[in-house]
Amino acid sequence: MLNILVLCTGNSARSILAEALLNARGDGRIRAFSAGSSPTGTPNPLALETLVANDLPSDGYRSKSWDEFAGPDAPELDAVITVCDSAAAEVCPVGPGAPVRAHWGLPDPADIETVDAARKAFADTFRALDARILALLAALQGSDHVALQSAFDQIKLQDF
Amino acid sequence: MLNILVLCTGNSARSILAEALLNARGDGRIRAFSAGSSPTGTPNPLALETLVANDLPSDGYRSKSWDEFAGPDAPELDAVITVCDSAAAEVCPVGPGAPVRAHWGLPDPADIETVDAARKAFADTFRALDARILALLAALQGSDHVALQSAFDQIKLQDF
Repeated sequence: MLNILVLCTGNSARSILAEALLNARGDGRIRAFSAGSSPTGTPNPLALETLVANDLPSDGYRSKSWDEFAGPDAPELDAVITVCDSAAAEVCPVGPGAPVRAHWGLPDPADIETVDAARKAFADTFRALDARILALLAALQGSDHVALQSAFDQIKLQDF
Repeated sequence: MLNILVLCTGNSARSILAEALLNARGDGRIRAFSAGSSPTGTPNPLALETLVANDLPSDGYRSKSWDEFAGPDAPELDAVITVCDSAAAEVCPVGPGAPVRAHWGLPDPADIETVDAARKAFADTFRALDARILALLAALQGSDHVALQSAFDQIKLQDF
């Protein structure tokens, strides 16, 4: 099981969508979490609406501080993905530990005034994240054999 | 989940021990199977006795042909380990598909006349396989991050 933490600033929109998608598409291989450097305290209702519209569970999501993943009882993380918008000069948080790091910059769909435009922005964000996550999983599937071969090669070098 | 098939000639001793150890030590990451190119039809009683002596389940093992893993309904294999003894000029089977392949040559503990000496040979085989399997799992643990990094790197090259 690979533990992946998705970080953004508010942990209310992009990181919630990415957490939901990683868990849904990961098919038991991935356990995803999300957190923010300055959590808003509540998942954006349009994020939950977007999950429902795409037949994904929308229960149990919380907007929470990344501090929850810094303590001794926190899950050991294999990867951290930041989904804040570098182009908008957002401060992207850096998480604890030494996991693999990736930055998937995406504009904030919550940063839009009219509801109709925001709803479309959430749908676009969902699709962009889904495409990346499906590509990541496909790449990971191929990498499994690379990892196995590497592990067997290390064994060969040892003396049993 | 990584599907690993262990092959030897008779599928009654070494490959049964390896199947049991991979499932026990794999901690949910590995699903192991075993088969033989000329199955004896019955697991060696000393193999099952060795499993019991090491607190591993000894139920449900079968000595069976590798043909079971060649059909369209067979599980998709990630790795095949052969555990026959090249030094004794045994014919090592080659399985179907394109999984990662490894050869862990081990003398046949069943090829010993007196029961006491055979019992000791089974215990030695168990320990040798256990050491390799624990080393493989440790190497695989480290390789998970290599696989993740490789998958993220492939994503970066694409245009989303």
